[in-house]
Amino acid sequence: MTKPLNHTMLCDFYELTMGNGYFQTGMKDQICYFDVFFRSVPDGGGFAIAAGLEQIIDYIQDLHFDDGDIDYLHSKGCFSEEFLEYLKHFQFTGDIWAVPEGTPIFPREPILTVRAPAIEAQFIETFLLLCLNHQSLIATKTNRIVRSAQGRPVSEFGSRRAQGPDAAILGARASYIAGAAGTACTQADRLYGSPAGGTMAHSWVQMFPDEYSAFETYCKLYPHNATLLVDTYNVLHSGVPNAIKAFNEVLKPLGITNCGIRLDSGDLTYLSKKARKMLDEAGWTGCKIFASNSLDEYIIRDLMLQGAQIDAFGVGERLITSKSEPVFGGVYKLAAIESADGSITPKIKISENSAKITTPHFKKVYRIFSRDTGKAEADLICVHNETVDDTKPLELFDPDAVWKRKTYENFTAVELLRPIFRGGKLVYEKPSIEAIRAYCAQQVDSLWDEVKRFENPHNYYVDLSQKLWDIKQELLKSNNR
Amino acid sequence: MTKPLNHTMLCDFYELTMGNGYFQTGMKDQICYFDVFFRSVPDGGGFAIAAGLEQIIDYIQDLHFDDGDIDYLHSKGCFSEEFLEYLKHFQFTGDIWAVPEGTPIFPREPILTVRAPAIEAQFIETFLLLCLNHQSLIATKTNRIVRSAQGRPVSEFGSRRAQGPDAAILGARASYIAGAAGTACTQADRLYGSPAGGTMAHSWVQMFPDEYSAFETYCKLYPHNATLLVDTYNVLHSGVPNAIKAFNEVLKPLGITNCGIRLDSGDLTYLSKKARKMLDEAGWTGCKIFASNSLDEYIIRDLMLQGAQIDAFGVGERLITSKSEPVFGGVYKLAAIESADGSITPKIKISENSAKITTPHFKKVYRIFSRDTGKAEADLICVHNETVDDTKPLELFDPDAVWKRKTYENFTAVELLRPIFRGGKLVYEKPSIEAIRAYCAQQVDSLWDEVKRFENPHNYYVDLSQKLWDIKQELLKSNNR
Repeated sequence: MTKPLNHTMLCDFYELTMGNGYFQTGMKDQICYFDVFFRSVPDGGGFAIAAGLEQIIDYIQDLHFDDGDIDYLHSKGCFSEEFLEYLKHFQFTGDIWAVPEGTPIFPREPILTVRAPAIEAQFIETFLLLCLNHQSLIATKTNRIVRSAQGRPVSEFGSRRAQGPDAAILGARASYIAGAAGTACTQADRLYGSPAGGTMAHSWVQMFPDEYSAFETYCKLYPHNATLLVDTYNVLHSGVPNAIKAFNEVLKPLGITNCGIRLDSGDLTYLSKKARKMLDEAGWTGCKIFASNSLDEYIIRDLMLQGAQIDAFGVGERLITSKSEPVFGGVYKLAAIESADGSITPKIKISENSAKITTPHFKKVYRIFSRDTGKAEADLICVHNETVDDTKPLELFDPDAVWKRKTYENFTAVELLRPIFRGGKLVYEKPSIEAIRAYCAQQVDSLWDEVKRFENPHNYYVDLSQKLWDIKQELLKSNNR
Repeated sequence: MTKPLNHTMLCDFYELTMGNGYFQTGMKDQICYFDVFFRSVPDGGGFAIAAGLEQIIDYIQDLHFDDGDIDYLHSKGCFSEEFLEYLKHFQFTGDIWAVPEGTPIFPREPILTVRAPAIEAQFIETFLLLCLNHQSLIATKTNRIVRSAQGRPVSEFGSRRAQGPDAAILGARASYIAGAAGTACTQADRLYGSPAGGTMAHSWVQMFPDEYSAFETYCKLYPHNATLLVDTYNVLHSGVPNAIKAFNEVLKPLGITNCGIRLDSGDLTYLSKKARKMLDEAGWTGCKIFASNSLDEYIIRDLMLQGAQIDAFGVGERLITSKSEPVFGGVYKLAAIESADGSITPKIKISENSAKITTPHFKKVYRIFSRDTGKAEADLICVHNETVDDTKPLELFDPDAVWKRKTYENFTAVELLRPIFRGGKLVYEKPSIEAIRAYCAQQVDSLWDEVKRFENPHNYYVDLSQKLWDIKQELLKSNNR
């Protein structure tokens, strides 16, 4: 297997012009803290799902410029020789904390924090954002679609409409984390273990003199996995009858009762009900009905409401591009700088748009779970050296409406950001994809249904500690010149 | 530079189950013809732009399964040993014709045709579609944005919001083909020659004790490329005044008059007019104003209409994901099969939705250019062995309204589909990216302005020859049982 392209050079050019600037002006060893966070959940949902950390780990571990890269940078004529010499030995020596993949995440809380010398911390911005934004987008969308199917399997079918090869492969990975049952993408199975499957295209049916011989041949070839695409000519007049005939002729003598048909066009509610009836009357009650064709969470919800007789869904372009909202807006913002004596100076980014004002300082995030219900009640962002004592009552307040206060008792406080790198060394054991997928399902289960509504969900609380709130207010005042 | 991942395994799993089926049933050497075409232009536009062929060529030339791939496929338990043995030596031995990258393309005309033995022709479907769909999507969107800027440079700034690493890099490539002036993506410059550039992030400004020292330092470092980001604190009260001060202190003594500021938030029309006035009054008439922040063709058009004083645009997420319509719906459909004696049997895919009915047969496409105006007038799809004699008048008719007829005289007929592979060998000389970009600009120039409107454009004619129309009607009749 050929090694993936090294992604060191996948950076915005300004990361390098700034890097050269920090180098030239003696600021390269200035320790700084950057946070990744996002401002709103795609599709108006109540939460997103973090994904992409594994690829960030691989990227950090593989960070290096090769001679060709250095030659290219030299040719741009804007970097000092000393800086280029420095880049030849460039590696990441800092610390990274991040929420595990599969964690439900909420706007304005750090989902990844970097502490590193200025050039390193700045340089990794582009790839970290790209990776988290892409996979979190697809995981978030997939989880919506999976929830709409109410336990019926949803497979990812979108490779051909994905935005490039990585979007197909890593999108399939993210979708599996978030609950997809599998993928059509062979490479995603080979590389990441999202189970690949699939049966036939319309062209298979067209290649034969008639539909029946296409079905008969397929049943003979794959008697234990015979899912026949029944809409090449006419679903109810030819597709389903020919499928039943092939099942009768080929599978019945073998004693096989599990099989399937796939509907890929037309009115899926109407066709699935009619087909179900025809299959049942022919004795093929074990035949599953698969449906595909421009599905998403809204269409699947409607199909379910209308009593469509569909057992499994294949979802393509609307999942693999998150078509209804194809951008996850994670940002990377300076939160603090650290002096040589270890003291930390919080930094804030002001904006006329108050939603765009950052939360300063080196922080940690607790998720508060009720011991009574097991449900997640709120997230609390604190200064890095604060701790929550979950043996005592905890009063939280809304940072935008400080008079809204609530006291929690009988809770557990779980830290969300885990150490990933320490001094450039990986200190995190990468979980298997199956473990990530199970963790994701369990964490989504810990959310109240109100937070999981597709539209107008309940607003989950993400609060600041009193100490952090005070620091933010102080900085806002001193900056408001 | 590490070699890119081989993409052989980036296929829908059903390409393999069907391939095994063709192999097992003696159909593997059945020659067939597949077309790639699309059904509607994204964003309601009048035309799309083809892109992605170069990556398809690389893919075809690099097609091979390695031992690990074969082991993986073996583990799936559904492929015969003979088929897996065959895959060990799998390569593409067929023919491919395609429109050159940068060509304006229209719905329902073939933009790529494959003639190959069944397994090979079927197998390459997923990657061909993925590649053409992705890059054509981004090229089409970019061309709209570039046209909205009326000659002002538009740079691609979207890596951090791209759907995976390839989407960033290949998206930057596609955008350069379609007229972007450059990219922020370093790797896209290194690999594909789309010029990379960029200056500073807000974090640069925040890293210094004050805005002025950040600007002064940057001007000293990059006196010939000093574009200062002026919206970290307050554009008009601090950003622009500090920029002018830095220009005066650092650039003026060096005799440098070219410089820039970048606006990344707020009302760009208002701020750019005010900033322009302040810069001009300070004598910095050579200072360019760059603008970014969630731009697209509609916002840029409005900014231009309102007289915004912007000299260049940076466009991020709405370009790199084609946010308003993130899917290009290219499909891959069987058009014909060929007997051992060389005779070709056209194949049609019927649908209740008449827009989804395919045009059968092995075809060629002519673009009709007026000799008087140089403008593209219509495309004509014919059977592969027809030729258009452009010394004689040519009557075309609308295939959906056959009474609409028009006769062309004094025209040239240019074949759009060029031979790319013959018998598995590359017969096409890959143009440089600069040549593709120039060709694209010249071809878009050959379209009437009416076709280039963002909304409700004039419907460009894509007609069928009488012979092809007759064949299609005949097949429709015989299939309509």
